[in-house]
Amino acid sequence: MAKYTIGVDFGTESGRAVLVDVADGREIASAVYPYAHGVIDEHLPIPSKEIRLEPDWALQDPEDYIRTFQNTIPAVLRQSGIDPKDVIGVGIDFTACTMLPVKADGAPLCTLSQYREHPHAWVKLWKHHAAQPEADIINLTARRMGESWLDRYGGKISSEWFFSKVLQILTEAPEIYAAADRMIEAADWVVWQLTGVETRNSCTAGYKAIWSKREGFPDSSYFSALDPRLANVIDEKMSRRITPIGQRAGNLTSQAAAWTGLPPGIAVAIANVDAHVAVPAATVTEPRRMVMIMGTSICHMVLSKEEHIVPGMCGYVEDGIIPGLFGYEAGQSCVGDHFAWFVENCTPAAYQQEATARGIDIHQLLEEKAARLEPGESGLLALDWWNGNRSVLVDVNLTGLLLGATLATKAEEIYRALIEATAYGTRVIVEAFENNGVPINELVGCGGLPEKNKLLMQIYADVTGREIKVTASNQAPALGSAMFGAVAAGKAAGGYESIYEAAQTMAHLKDVVYTPISEHQQVYNLLYDEYLKLHDYFGRGENDVMKRLKRIKTEQVLKNT
Amino acid sequence: MAKYTIGVDFGTESGRAVLVDVADGREIASAVYPYAHGVIDEHLPIPSKEIRLEPDWALQDPEDYIRTFQNTIPAVLRQSGIDPKDVIGVGIDFTACTMLPVKADGAPLCTLSQYREHPHAWVKLWKHHAAQPEADIINLTARRMGESWLDRYGGKISSEWFFSKVLQILTEAPEIYAAADRMIEAADWVVWQLTGVETRNSCTAGYKAIWSKREGFPDSSYFSALDPRLANVIDEKMSRRITPIGQRAGNLTSQAAAWTGLPPGIAVAIANVDAHVAVPAATVTEPRRMVMIMGTSICHMVLSKEEHIVPGMCGYVEDGIIPGLFGYEAGQSCVGDHFAWFVENCTPAAYQQEATARGIDIHQLLEEKAARLEPGESGLLALDWWNGNRSVLVDVNLTGLLLGATLATKAEEIYRALIEATAYGTRVIVEAFENNGVPINELVGCGGLPEKNKLLMQIYADVTGREIKVTASNQAPALGSAMFGAVAAGKAAGGYESIYEAAQTMAHLKDVVYTPISEHQQVYNLLYDEYLKLHDYFGRGENDVMKRLKRIKTEQVLKNT
Repeated sequence: MAKYTIGVDFGTESGRAVLVDVADGREIASAVYPYAHGVIDEHLPIPSKEIRLEPDWALQDPEDYIRTFQNTIPAVLRQSGIDPKDVIGVGIDFTACTMLPVKADGAPLCTLSQYREHPHAWVKLWKHHAAQPEADIINLTARRMGESWLDRYGGKISSEWFFSKVLQILTEAPEIYAAADRMIEAADWVVWQLTGVETRNSCTAGYKAIWSKREGFPDSSYFSALDPRLANVIDEKMSRRITPIGQRAGNLTSQAAAWTGLPPGIAVAIANVDAHVAVPAATVTEPRRMVMIMGTSICHMVLSKEEHIVPGMCGYVEDGIIPGLFGYEAGQSCVGDHFAWFVENCTPAAYQQEATARGIDIHQLLEEKAARLEPGESGLLALDWWNGNRSVLVDVNLTGLLLGATLATKAEEIYRALIEATAYGTRVIVEAFENNGVPINELVGCGGLPEKNKLLMQIYADVTGREIKVTASNQAPALGSAMFGAVAAGKAAGGYESIYEAAQTMAHLKDVVYTPISEHQQVYNLLYDEYLKLHDYFGRGENDVMKRLKRIKTEQVLKNT
Repeated sequence: MAKYTIGVDFGTESGRAVLVDVADGREIASAVYPYAHGVIDEHLPIPSKEIRLEPDWALQDPEDYIRTFQNTIPAVLRQSGIDPKDVIGVGIDFTACTMLPVKADGAPLCTLSQYREHPHAWVKLWKHHAAQPEADIINLTARRMGESWLDRYGGKISSEWFFSKVLQILTEAPEIYAAADRMIEAADWVVWQLTGVETRNSCTAGYKAIWSKREGFPDSSYFSALDPRLANVIDEKMSRRITPIGQRAGNLTSQAAAWTGLPPGIAVAIANVDAHVAVPAATVTEPRRMVMIMGTSICHMVLSKEEHIVPGMCGYVEDGIIPGLFGYEAGQSCVGDHFAWFVENCTPAAYQQEATARGIDIHQLLEEKAARLEPGESGLLALDWWNGNRSVLVDVNLTGLLLGATLATKAEEIYRALIEATAYGTRVIVEAFENNGVPINELVGCGGLPEKNKLLMQIYADVTGREIKVTASNQAPALGSAMFGAVAAGKAAGGYESIYEAAQTMAHLKDVVYTPISEHQQVYNLLYDEYLKLHDYFGRGENDVMKRLKRIKTEQVLKNT
């Protein structure tokens, strides 16, 4: 009798469930739930009152996550026609650090009427960028105190991460901080909702909350230096019991069974992060092969047997991706988002009309036109910082730059320049790893972009000078979660002993390989040199114009509100 | 009995005639002829054969100029209902340097079948930018030989000017150079077509062809150093008889009378340049008031009693604008063109739809949205070099830059940043004049933009910190030409003795004054500092990335052709 697991992938705009055959990883059915409240970045979704958010805020509604379970799991069961009793486990993955303050029983503060109108009571999405001042304090204090863990994170803690967000809540809304019994990753929170048990996964703890297997969390003295009220934040609001990924978090409660139509009691895996869980789903369980999860942003994941300090990386965590190896993470905060922005804000009406007339997507039309250009032919060069820089500069206050425009510049040329800029950004990351002892021979792409944009994949191969393969699944994180669901269920229930075993049968690559074209590489090497020069000039303090402009902007926006 | 003159203004895309009452400058009628072949920058307009042009080329068809006379003058006569016998003179003004090779009888080489397929036989429009290598040689040679005239042109001869274009013809098409009996400004050529007499005006000779009243042209030894075949270019292809502006070139021929419906024999003024002729039409015949002719580009004109060296200016010419004064010229090569480019290439479909639905122009919609922003609120900063920099860097190989974009950046923010960038460009020019002995107290705007875009005018006032007035006429060059037509006709025929006299009755300002808003000035002072820093970094050799990208671009384009 065939056995199945379900992986649920919580993305930025929607949640997706995939029902997978444990024997071979075949995806039997999938369903998507677009969050009713999406990304909340203008005002709270409260009908009674207009509560506006400041710039750089990005929130979510935790009830959208429950609705994801309620909508997608019944849908995949229905579509597949299988007997729900043959589902042996569930795994989930989430964007991170996406976190929320909750009560001891798990109730999010924003669902309680007394806190509902307070923005700090809501889920802070990964791309909530308003905690930069707090990140600055965290970094300055760590440097001042000589905290050894700082090197594990490339020398910088991001404003996107857990303690930056916690410190922002404490500073700006101490009453919310006080009211919160727990501060928790949304990843762990949804597992709690499925199992009734609060657990904390090693992946988000390691990558986003300064935890390591060998050293645990920073000392109380460090937290106390940030703010005396934070001294016992771990014991008061979090937990020192961190469970390694690949473990079972608990069993599905009858309430969750009622939401989903699944049998109560089946295995639920410890939570994972979307990017990290995609690595084994991309067949990668060994060093030297970098996985790129390419969607609104890119996460770069690579494994190594040794511990290395790589400046400006997001972090490395022992057992963070695959047990027994160090998992290194880097990222670019704006890739698919970039092209979406361009299409929405900069594509002329004539192009929209042409796409409509030909019955194709506007991205397709732009890709087609951009593909006719030679590298360097547009004369354009961009810095891909429309959403800041995550690696290797780790600075959300950097902004986008386009250089080389003339009166003959066309939309497809800008579009191509933006793609190229993100490819240069990836090359900076690849070279930072290589120059610091983490070699990379091959890239494996997964996520929405490799599926949608062949030009982009070829440009990445040309710019990085490396072959790129593509995962067979176009929903690798969900597949990876389903794989961890099978590991959580265990061999006895029809699953697997380990993620290595699961990867061997459940993960596959496509036949397609993108190979660098040497003529293109030559031109891109010249352009990359120019990119690097601008990257360092604007990114490493020689001209901080981007930050000064951002400061003026913030002042002007505040003046008007 | 009322007397009239006609001014014909030859622009970049079209020619315009205005019929003016000599008594008070009232514009009785006007008509526009859009050139059949417009700006020729992709391939020659020859049906039989596809002859492509290289990047940076910009040509015109001289027959479009004749068609301008044939279409517009009969139209204004018809519209006005006046008796053509009451028209006492015609004046013309032209873009410059716009030049062409012709035979001794005035026939343009491109109209002769044996040369028609040769791009170098056509009119080179002012914005033909392919003669930069020749301009570089002209400048290097002049510096090496210590030519004193170089200082009159801010230390640099532009690729747009006469001898850069001549040298390009000689270098790339010696057979065209040899076949040309005359090399002539299109301004002088159209006057030749009206009068049957070849004349050369002091304005284009002075500003574009290195001539001065006191020193004449550079020596033969200099031309010979450029290329031995150029040694006698003045005597072989041009003329040393330069006629001051304000003079009569000749009388209307019967052929030209037949084209236009005007009486044969009436006065035709010596040719003038569109920007320069607008100065008296803007009421300016004295120092300290800068005239800005604001259209596709901006020309800045200011008068002074003394001779000053202003680095990076386009030039100064004694009697070049107003007899008795030194006329200083500076310019920005991309202003209205910039916004047109933006609207055509970067404005999203939704905005076009909104404009259409509301029955307004898309520029109007963008202006309206951009006007709601505070200075600095967008966080954007641009360098206005989409068409190179004419003053003070004098470098066509500079390109546009936009900095500060985020995923929240909207089209109107970019639009406003482009307007602001051109305002900073004007401030650089104003400050260069002031720092070198040519004070500027007030700005007077004329041309299409002041009429169309009030936001732009306010931003220019805020950025420059100066009051801006606006000419009453929205076709100042044509009015100026009509004024010079009245001067050419002379008092006896019902015209004027001098341009001073004509300006007193025929030129007027609007009531509107744009006054700097001090709150805006404060923010713009901060942003201007940032602009200057980027201006110098990219424009003065610290990082020549724009030029290197242009070189790569040219190589890639050539590879494909």
